[in-house]
Amino acid sequence: MKFTKMHGLGNDFILIDLPESPQLEAWEETAIQMCDRHFGIGADGLVLLFPVDDADFGMRILNRDGSVTEQCGNAIRCAGRYYYEKNSSAKQTLVIQTRIGNQTVSLTEDEVCVNMGEPILQGLEIPVDLDLERVVKQSIDVNGERFWFTAVSMGNPHIVIEVEDAATFPIEIWGPLLETHALFPNRANIEFITVRSATDIQMRVWERGVGQTLACGSGACAVLVASVLNGQTETKAQIELLGGELTIEWNQENQQVYMTGPATFVFEGEWVSS
Amino acid sequence: MKFTKMHGLGNDFILIDLPESPQLEAWEETAIQMCDRHFGIGADGLVLLFPVDDADFGMRILNRDGSVTEQCGNAIRCAGRYYYEKNSSAKQTLVIQTRIGNQTVSLTEDEVCVNMGEPILQGLEIPVDLDLERVVKQSIDVNGERFWFTAVSMGNPHIVIEVEDAATFPIEIWGPLLETHALFPNRANIEFITVRSATDIQMRVWERGVGQTLACGSGACAVLVASVLNGQTETKAQIELLGGELTIEWNQENQQVYMTGPATFVFEGEWVSS
Repeated sequence: MKFTKMHGLGNDFILIDLPESPQLEAWEETAIQMCDRHFGIGADGLVLLFPVDDADFGMRILNRDGSVTEQCGNAIRCAGRYYYEKNSSAKQTLVIQTRIGNQTVSLTEDEVCVNMGEPILQGLEIPVDLDLERVVKQSIDVNGERFWFTAVSMGNPHIVIEVEDAATFPIEIWGPLLETHALFPNRANIEFITVRSATDIQMRVWERGVGQTLACGSGACAVLVASVLNGQTETKAQIELLGGELTIEWNQENQQVYMTGPATFVFEGEWVSS
Repeated sequence: MKFTKMHGLGNDFILIDLPESPQLEAWEETAIQMCDRHFGIGADGLVLLFPVDDADFGMRILNRDGSVTEQCGNAIRCAGRYYYEKNSSAKQTLVIQTRIGNQTVSLTEDEVCVNMGEPILQGLEIPVDLDLERVVKQSIDVNGERFWFTAVSMGNPHIVIEVEDAATFPIEIWGPLLETHALFPNRANIEFITVRSATDIQMRVWERGVGQTLACGSGACAVLVASVLNGQTETKAQIELLGGELTIEWNQENQQVYMTGPATFVFEGEWVSS
């Protein structure tokens, strides 16, 4: 079975072209085998691409544990660039059918821009256990320490906390304590940020159920939105993550958040395991 | 650049055919890039194969950090099976030129047998800071706990310790404390074992400078030798590791230790990164 390995900021995927829309349950075991980093190909997820009638192509994402995920900004960038490079007739703006509906991506020289949708700011909808229209600079006490956070959902809950130096902050200590705090009924992704200028933010992310990762696209979007809500940055800024850089823009006319970043080919392969 | 991904008990390698003996320094950076599990192909090491005059082929192994390693039983099994499958004229017994001289491997249906050489048992040669002909069932005190160990070198130092249940033993606590104990001047690999019968040993390994790994070929050899020295097993036994099973035999006529185990193809690839 032929596949292509790509990554977006080190968040890495196996991409496979299928002739038709897949039965996802039938791929669960294969995803687990392929994503295993010692016995398989090794990846954070498996991305299946297939033809559809009402968009340029369809895609589905399976996590390395075989579960299906709704949304992943890094995977959509990879899928968009993959389709564009493989199809000489592809336009530079592509409509991709995903589990949460059609999403549009635009390709520039070697970057891909994805519309990540509108942020959810209402406390109980994020969800955060605070009945507020916007959850901005609220305090939270953990193990005798007080943090100030801003909460944003991009379809998944993010808690953004400013720290003096995100590069050295002990995220492995505070990440898990905040992730599981009683204020966050569905737990939360925790972003620790340092605002370097009105157009430059450094962040490290503790992903819900995963731990620290190199990059989280929806987290970068939440960080930009939070920084705008706090009056600290412009509506478009560079976000520096461990795995690389993203440009995030919160369009104030349509309220949509746009993420622009790289999608990198690593190798083409032929899977020979049984 | 074409490559093949294989693993032996989950210890995984990128194999590349070269037209001639490589300048290893020139491969250091490539090894680091290729072995990266997020931005590259992902592997424990890079195995370079090339033609030589005085053996079936030559091989060199670079670790994921770009350093060159002398010996790796899992990599030699993979290289032997790779050469055998790729060359229809290959014999079932192959001589491989390595950094430590010519090594012989034999292929059976889907397993590969490697001569791992003669164990070193003299204390100061292992090295262990005990001037004994054989270091068998010696005591060692660590953090108020006493362990009994047997020491064997297979070119690298191994300390074998019997525990009640190797499967549940807290290796991440005791492994690093024992690895760096003053008795072991070059530090040591630590194997925790449970002898299940005269032909069946369960082991988990704490590798020097690495931590717990799925499998360690030279460690499995040391475990069998130690168990024979302690009168607990026959000279041939199955060793169960986290990554799978090896058969180890200590031939009493020529004193050589033979390791037999699987070498598995995972995928063929074409590296496209710059």
